[in-house]
Amino acid sequence: MTRQFRSSNLPLRFDDDVAAYPVSKNEWLILKTDMFVGSTDIPNGMKVWQAARKAVVATVSDFASKGIRPHVIMLSLGLPSNITRSTVHQLAIGFRKGAEEYGCKVIGGDTGTAKDLVFDIVGSGFARPSEIMRRRGAKPGDIIVATGMFGKTAAGLRILSSNRKTSFRRKYHTLLTSVLNPKARLKIGVLLGKSHAVTSSIDSSDGLAWSLHLLAQLNKVNIKIDHVPIPNDVYRFANETSLDPLDLALYGGEEYEIIASVKPNQCQLLEQKIRSLVRIGTVESGNGQVILSTDHSEKVVEAKGWDPFRNS
Amino acid sequence: MTRQFRSSNLPLRFDDDVAAYPVSKNEWLILKTDMFVGSTDIPNGMKVWQAARKAVVATVSDFASKGIRPHVIMLSLGLPSNITRSTVHQLAIGFRKGAEEYGCKVIGGDTGTAKDLVFDIVGSGFARPSEIMRRRGAKPGDIIVATGMFGKTAAGLRILSSNRKTSFRRKYHTLLTSVLNPKARLKIGVLLGKSHAVTSSIDSSDGLAWSLHLLAQLNKVNIKIDHVPIPNDVYRFANETSLDPLDLALYGGEEYEIIASVKPNQCQLLEQKIRSLVRIGTVESGNGQVILSTDHSEKVVEAKGWDPFRNS
Repeated sequence: MTRQFRSSNLPLRFDDDVAAYPVSKNEWLILKTDMFVGSTDIPNGMKVWQAARKAVVATVSDFASKGIRPHVIMLSLGLPSNITRSTVHQLAIGFRKGAEEYGCKVIGGDTGTAKDLVFDIVGSGFARPSEIMRRRGAKPGDIIVATGMFGKTAAGLRILSSNRKTSFRRKYHTLLTSVLNPKARLKIGVLLGKSHAVTSSIDSSDGLAWSLHLLAQLNKVNIKIDHVPIPNDVYRFANETSLDPLDLALYGGEEYEIIASVKPNQCQLLEQKIRSLVRIGTVESGNGQVILSTDHSEKVVEAKGWDPFRNS
Repeated sequence: MTRQFRSSNLPLRFDDDVAAYPVSKNEWLILKTDMFVGSTDIPNGMKVWQAARKAVVATVSDFASKGIRPHVIMLSLGLPSNITRSTVHQLAIGFRKGAEEYGCKVIGGDTGTAKDLVFDIVGSGFARPSEIMRRRGAKPGDIIVATGMFGKTAAGLRILSSNRKTSFRRKYHTLLTSVLNPKARLKIGVLLGKSHAVTSSIDSSDGLAWSLHLLAQLNKVNIKIDHVPIPNDVYRFANETSLDPLDLALYGGEEYEIIASVKPNQCQLLEQKIRSLVRIGTVESGNGQVILSTDHSEKVVEAKGWDPFRNS
C-alpha cells in the first residue's frame, strides 16, 4: 500500500513486513509502524485493554515472522474528545502488558485528538542481515511450514459478533481467546531466523490464503497445500454452525502464525528443533497460484483476504 | 500526555521531545512519533502535500531541538474511505519532500482506513548521549536564546482562516509562508548540541509562552524574558488588524524555533558561531514562572498554549 514511495537502495523492500536501515555491515535498524483504528479494528466484545495489547502483538508478530526481536515500542494515540480517563488508563495497561509479554520496553509516544480512537504502534529492534527472513526467497522444492493451526480466530470473531448464549461461548472459549488474547510466535520466529534454513517467511495476520498468495506472487512460484491444520474446536464449531471449517482456516485473519518456506534438506532437522512446526505444503514452479491438493483432486485457492466487515 | 507509562530506567524522560534507547555506551537510538489529524491539524488554505511536508518538519524540529539528526522516517496513514488516489499521491509527495529537505530517508510505513485523515510520522536517528540537549538542565544565571523571531505563524494562520483579499495575502506572504512552508532549525540544532554550551532546550511548536513555561516548570526556575524578537511584518499586520503583536509572538504555535538555555560564560562564543541566535532572557531562581520584563515593569506571562481552534 505504500508503494508510492521510492524503495530504491533500501535493504528490505517496501512490501516486506518491516523496514530496515543499515547501521553497520552486520547490523540493521529495524522499524515497523502499524495503525489501528477503533471503528474497524476493535470487534464487539473486545475490551479496550485487549485491543491495545493485541495491537502490540500484531506488531511483534511482524518482527517474529522476520526472525527479529523487537526491543522498544513507541505509541501514538489519537483520542476522541469524549474519551474517559478510565479508557486511556485501560489502553495504557494493554500496551504495557503486550510489550512486557515480549520483552519490549515502551519508551515514549504521542497523543492527540481524533474523531476515531486511533493508535499507531511503532516497534524497533536490531538484526543481523543474515538472520532476517524475507518475504522473497522461496524456491521450487522448498517445504511450506506453519507454526500452528488455523481457523480459530475466524470462528472466534463470529462468536464475538453473534448473540450466542454464555454456555455456547464457554464451550468455545479457546476460539474466543484466540481473538481476545492472541499470541505472537516470537521465540519460534527467532529460532527460525537463526536456523538459516528458511528461504521466505510471512505472518498469517491477513489470513492463511492471502499470506500464501503473497508468498507465491512475490516469489513467482506456485504453492501447493496438502494439509491445512485445523484444531478440533474449529471442526466442532463449524459443524454446529453449518460453516465450512476449511473456509474458516483459509479466509480468517488476525491469526498470528508464521508461514515459512524451508530448504528441503534442512526441514527435518528444523522440525526436530521446533516441535510445533507443521508441514502444510510445498513450493512448485509456477506463476503465483495457491493450489489446495485434497486426496485425488486439486483446486485453486482464491486470493481472498481477511475482511473485518465480513464476519456475519 | 504519555505519563501513564512508566519511565523508570529510560535514558530520556517521557516528557522530553524524543525517546531514547541505549545501543552502546556512546550511542543511543532516538525515536519520535507524532500524530497529525486532518480535521484539527490542517488549516483551511493548506494543500494536502503542504500538510504532509509540515508533519515531517514538525518531527524534524523535535530532533533539531535535541541536537540530533533524524536519519529515517516511517509513515503510518489512516485514510478516509472516500480519499482519492490524487490525494494519496499528494501526501506521498509532501512526505518525501519534507524528508529530502532534511536528509532523511522514508523507509516504510503502513496504511489503513480511518474516519479522519490521520498520519503518524516516526523519526529515527542515533545520537551521542553527551550531545543531546534535554529539556532539563537550565540553571539560574543561564541565558535564554532563540533561533529566530516569533509571531509569524499566529499572524499567518489568521490570514489563512480569514476572507482577506489576494492583495492583502500578497502583502503578508512571508507570514503565510511561515505556516504553509515552515522550516525546522536542524543545522543550528546540531551545532548547538555539539557546542556543549546548552543546558536545556525545547522547540517552540506549542507557542513561545508555553515552551518557556515548560522549561521553567521542568527545571524549577523562573525565566525572565526581556526581549521578544518580532519581525516587522508581524508588527505591520498587527497594526493593520488591531491585534497585539506581543500576543501573536507569545501565544502562537507551529513555529519551529529552538529555545535554549546557555551557560553564561559560553554564550558569546556561541553567538559568534551561530549568528542568527537571539538573546531573549535569563534563567533566575524561582518556582516555574515566566516573567516578561519591559522597561520599568514586569508581568507574569500566562501559561497559555497554542489552540488550533482559536484562530479567529
